[in-house]
Amino acid sequence: MAYNLLKGKKGIIFGALNEQSIAWKVAQRAHEEGAELVLTNAPIALRMGELNKLAEECNAPVIGADVTSNDDVQNLITKTMEHFNGGVDFILHAPAMSVNVRKGIRYPENNYEFTHKGFDISALSLHRVLQFAMKNKAINEWGSVVALSYIAAQRVFPDYNDMADNKAVLESIARNFGYYYGVENKVRINTVSQSPTRTTAGSGVKGFDGFINYAEKMSPLGNATADQCADYIVTLFSDLTRMVTMQNLFHDGGFSYTGVTEAVINQMGE
Amino acid sequence: MAYNLLKGKKGIIFGALNEQSIAWKVAQRAHEEGAELVLTNAPIALRMGELNKLAEECNAPVIGADVTSNDDVQNLITKTMEHFNGGVDFILHAPAMSVNVRKGIRYPENNYEFTHKGFDISALSLHRVLQFAMKNKAINEWGSVVALSYIAAQRVFPDYNDMADNKAVLESIARNFGYYYGVENKVRINTVSQSPTRTTAGSGVKGFDGFINYAEKMSPLGNATADQCADYIVTLFSDLTRMVTMQNLFHDGGFSYTGVTEAVINQMGE
Amino acid sequence: MAYNLLKGKKGIIFGALNEQSIAWKVAQRAHEEGAELVLTNAPIALRMGELNKLAEECNAPVIGADVTSNDDVQNLITKTMEHFNGGVDFILHAPAMSVNVRKGIRYPENNYEFTHKGFDISALSLHRVLQFAMKNKAINEWGSVVALSYIAAQRVFPDYNDMADNKAVLESIARNFGYYYGVENKVRINTVSQSPTRTTAGSGVKGFDGFINYAEKMSPLGNATADQCADYIVTLFSDLTRMVTMQNLFHDGGFSYTGVTEAVINQMGE
Amino acid sequence: MAYNLLKGKKGIIFGALNEQSIAWKVAQRAHEEGAELVLTNAPIALRMGELNKLAEECNAPVIGADVTSNDDVQNLITKTMEHFNGGVDFILHAPAMSVNVRKGIRYPENNYEFTHKGFDISALSLHRVLQFAMKNKAINEWGSVVALSYIAAQRVFPDYNDMADNKAVLESIARNFGYYYGVENKVRINTVSQSPTRTTAGSGVKGFDGFINYAEKMSPLGNATADQCADYIVTLFSDLTRMVTMQNLFHDGGFSYTGVTEAVINQMGE
Repeated sequence: MAYNLLKGKKGIIFGALNEQSIAWKVAQRAHEEGAELVLTNAPIALRMGELNKLAEECNAPVIGADVTSNDDVQNLITKTMEHFNGGVDFILHAPAMSVNVRKGIRYPENNYEFTHKGFDISALSLHRVLQFAMKNKAINEWGSVVALSYIAAQRVFPDYNDMADNKAVLESIARNFGYYYGVENKVRINTVSQSPTRTTAGSGVKGFDGFINYAEKMSPLGNATADQCADYIVTLFSDLTRMVTMQNLFHDGGFSYTGVTEAVINQMGE
Repeated sequence: MAYNLLKGKKGIIFGALNEQSIAWKVAQRAHEEGAELVLTNAPIALRMGELNKLAEECNAPVIGADVTSNDDVQNLITKTMEHFNGGVDFILHAPAMSVNVRKGIRYPENNYEFTHKGFDISALSLHRVLQFAMKNKAINEWGSVVALSYIAAQRVFPDYNDMADNKAVLESIARNFGYYYGVENKVRINTVSQSPTRTTAGSGVKGFDGFINYAEKMSPLGNATADQCADYIVTLFSDLTRMVTMQNLFHDGGFSYTGVTEAVINQMGE
Repeated sequence: MAYNLLKGKKGIIFGALNEQSIAWKVAQRAHEEGAELVLTNAPIALRMGELNKLAEECNAPVIGADVTSNDDVQNLITKTMEHFNGGVDFILHAPAMSVNVRKGIRYPENNYEFTHKGFDISALSLHRVLQFAMKNKAINEWGSVVALSYIAAQRVFPDYNDMADNKAVLESIARNFGYYYGVENKVRINTVSQSPTRTTAGSGVKGFDGFINYAEKMSPLGNATADQCADYIVTLFSDLTRMVTMQNLFHDGGFSYTGVTEAVINQMGE
Repeated sequence: MAYNLLKGKKGIIFGALNEQSIAWKVAQRAHEEGAELVLTNAPIALRMGELNKLAEECNAPVIGADVTSNDDVQNLITKTMEHFNGGVDFILHAPAMSVNVRKGIRYPENNYEFTHKGFDISALSLHRVLQFAMKNKAINEWGSVVALSYIAAQRVFPDYNDMADNKAVLESIARNFGYYYGVENKVRINTVSQSPTRTTAGSGVKGFDGFINYAEKMSPLGNATADQCADYIVTLFSDLTRMVTMQNLFHDGGFSYTGVTEAVINQMGE
C-alpha cells in the first residue's frame, strides 16, 4: 500500500546489489511512495548487471561510484544534481564490507590493511558522501540521510568481527556530521539498526544461520524483514520525522531491549 | 498535508487538555490521516469543557476515566469496544502529574504520599490501561501504543523532580509490557521522548522558560514543536513501523545526542 | 587479602539477611578493610536472628528499621550518629521485594496494591534514606552511597516482573539524588548492577536456575559472585573513586555488553 | 595514601608525555601501590626526554614503540616479557592524536589521509597491542587493560572532531576484544571516560578553555582531575574489580548523567 509519502522528493540510493538487498527494497518503496531516484553502487557491483532491472523498474539512472574515491563521490554528486536540476531530499547509505570477514580471519588476529580497507568502505564512506554533498549544497533543507547499522555497534556478536567496530564509527559519524549538517542546513542524519537479514552481505558472516535463529527467538515480534525495514526508512525520509536526528534507531522486533525470552531459556534447557 | 496513513484505523487518545496539548495535536493529526477516535481524560479535566471542541472536530465520543481507577479503565475499554464494535489499533498515553512539583517541593524533600500519587497517575496508569486492554483483547494484532516521555528519564534536570523517576518507570513499563504484548498479540509499545514543549503541563515546571531556551540552543535543529511530535507519532501508529517496539524514541531536534553546541559555549562565555 | 582501603571510615549496611546476601559479604569485606559499621534490616528480618552473628563478627550494633517508615529511618539515622558520634562515610542500600513475584502473579496481571508496596520497599526507600540523611547531615563530605540494581532495569527478563520497574526507578533516584547530594555536600551515589546471584532474594524468582545458567554462558568471564561484588563495592566506598557518581555500574563478567556468545549459540543449536 | 593494591603486579604504561599526562599520574600511583612498570611512548615523544624523569622515579625501563608498527609492538612485548621474566598484569593504553585537529580543519571538511592516520594511532593501536599481547601470552590470567576515552564517543562536542569517532571505535575494540580475551584468558578490558583535563593533548583542542569551564559547571562534583583519574584506574588494575569488563566507565564528577545544572542555566540567563 502506498501513501504518496515521498511525492515530489528526490533521493540517492546506495548499495542495491540484488533483490535481497535492503537498499533494493528501499528503492522500490521510495519509488512507490512517489520519489524520484538515482541509484548508485561500486563499479564492480554494477558489472553484475542486476541493478539495471531495478533502474528500469524505478525509472532511475545508475551512476557508478567507488565510495572510497573522492573523485567518484564528487562525480556522483555532480551528475545527480544535473539529473535532478538541483539537490536531493534523501540519501540511503548502505555500503559495508570487511576483508577480514571475507578471509575468515578471527577478530583478535585481524590484518590491519584489511581493517583500514573495511573502515574506508563501511564507515568513512558516509563522511565522504556527506562532505561532498555539503560542499555542493546537494541536500535540500530538511533533507534526511539514513545509514544502515547493526546492534553489534553496542554489544558483541563474535563472528561480526571488525564490522562491529565499523558500525560503531558509522553511528558516530552520523551523530557528529548530523550536528554540523543540522546547524548549517537543517539536514538530519540517522542510522537504522536492523535485525539480521538474509542479504548477500549478511549471509557472508560465519555462523549466520545459527545466529539468525537465535535472533528470531530473542525478538518478541520476530526478526524484522528487509521489506519492513524499507517501510520504516520511508517514514524517516518523509516530512513527518523532521526533528529525529543524530540517532541510532532500532528496527528489530524488540531484540535490542530484550534480555532473554522464555523461548531461548526453554530451548537452552532442553 | 495528509497521506491516509491511518485510514481504517481506530484509536484512543488520552490526556488532550487544550490546544497546546501534544495529545490534542495527535488527535487532530490522526483524524486527518483517516483514523476514528475515542477521546478520554480525567473527570476533573473534562469539567473544563475544552475537550468537547476537539470531540466535535474529530467526530469522536468522549469517555471520562480516572486512570488510577481499575473500574474507570475497564469502563473506558468496554465503552470503546462497544463504540467501535471491536478493538482499537492504537493508543496514545499522555497522563502525567506530580503533586510534589505542584506544591513547589524540592526533590530531596519530597513527600512520599505525593510521590505515590504521581507514580500512580504518570506511570502505573500505562500498565493499568495495558492490563485491561489485554484482558479484554482490546488492541488488534499489530496495534501500536505510544506513551510520552522525557529525557529526564536518562539524565538529571533539577526542576523536573519526581516526574523524572516516573518517566523512568514509564519507559520500563513500556519495555516490559511490550515484551508480553509483543509475544502474545503482536502489539508494539514505545515511548516518545519529546523536546520541552509549552503545554499546560510543561509550563508548570519551575524555571521552565530558562530551560526551554537552553534546550533550543542545545538542539542542532531547535526544539521540536507539539505539531511535529504529532506528525512523528502518526508514523508510529501506521503500518510502516510494525517492528519498532520496546524503545524510547527521541524526538528532540538532536538534543539528546549533543554534548554541547557552539551556541551554548558562546552564550556562557559572554 | 585486605588493604586498609576503608580505614577510619564508618558506614551503614542495609539488608544483610544471611550468609548468601550480598549485603552480608559487603559488611564482612568493609570490616576487613578497616571500616566501622552499623547493621540494619527490617524488624521481621531481624527476628530470624542470623544478623546477630554478623554483628558479632563485625563488632557492629544492629538497629532495626522498616525502610517504608519515615520514623524508623529517622530513628536509624539518629541512633547511628549517636553511635559514631558523627556522620558516616558510606551506605549500602539493598532492600528489594516484590509481592507480585512472591504471589506468582505474571507481569501483565499485576495487582497494583502489591506494586505500590514493592515500589515503596525497593525503590522509594533509597530516596527516604537519603532524604533523612541529608536533613540530619548524616553523610560526611565525599561520602559514597551504593544501591544494588540489576540489568532488568535496561532490558526485559520476563520473570523479574515489577522488580524490573523498581530497579529502573532506583537507578533514577540514585541519579537525581546524586545531583543534589553532589552539588550540596560532595556525596556520590551509584548503583551496582550485579550478575544474577544465588541469594535468598534471587532464588525467589521463577525460573531462576535456567536463567542463572544462561547468564553464566552469556558472560565472557562467567557470573560474578557475591564475594566479588563485595570486593567491587569496597572500591566504590574508598577514596579512590571520588568522582564516580550518578552511574549504574555493571558488575557482571561482561554480560551486559555481550550480544551473544558462541557457547549460547552452540547450546541452542544442539 | 597508598594501600599496596598492586603489590606484586607488573604493568605497561603507554603515553606518559609529561607531568600533566594522565598516563604519567597513573604510572606514579601504580608505582606507589607496589607495581613494577615498563614505560613506553612513541620514539618522537621519547626524544623530548621528560619520560626519563618518570622512569627514574618509578625505577622502570623505557621501551620505545610506534603503536602503528606491528614490529615495534612485537618488540615492546618481547622486551617487556624479558624484563619481567614473564607476562604483565595490567596495561594502560593512552595514545590519541588527530592530524585534522592539529591542522585546524573543521569536522565536515576532514582530510581522509589524516583521518586514517588518527584512526591508526588512537584506536587501532589498542587492537594491535592486544593482538600481540595475546599471541605472546603476555597478559596473565585476570589481567586488566584500561584505555582512555571521552564522552564525545556518545554525544557531540563540536571541536573534538574525528577524535570523537576514534573514541567510539576505541570503546568498540575494548568491548569486542574484551569478549575474546575474557573467554580465552580471563583478561578484562575497559575504557575510562574522563572529564576534560588540561593535558598537552587536551589543550590542543580549539575552544578548550570555554569548554572545560562549561564541563566544570555541568558536573555536580566538578571536573575530575588527572590525579583522581589515576586513583580510579588503580582500582581497575587491582584484584577487586575482576568481573568488570567490556565497559566504558565514566569518571567525570557526574557530567555524563546530568542534563543541565542550575549553574549553567543561571550563567546562560544573565
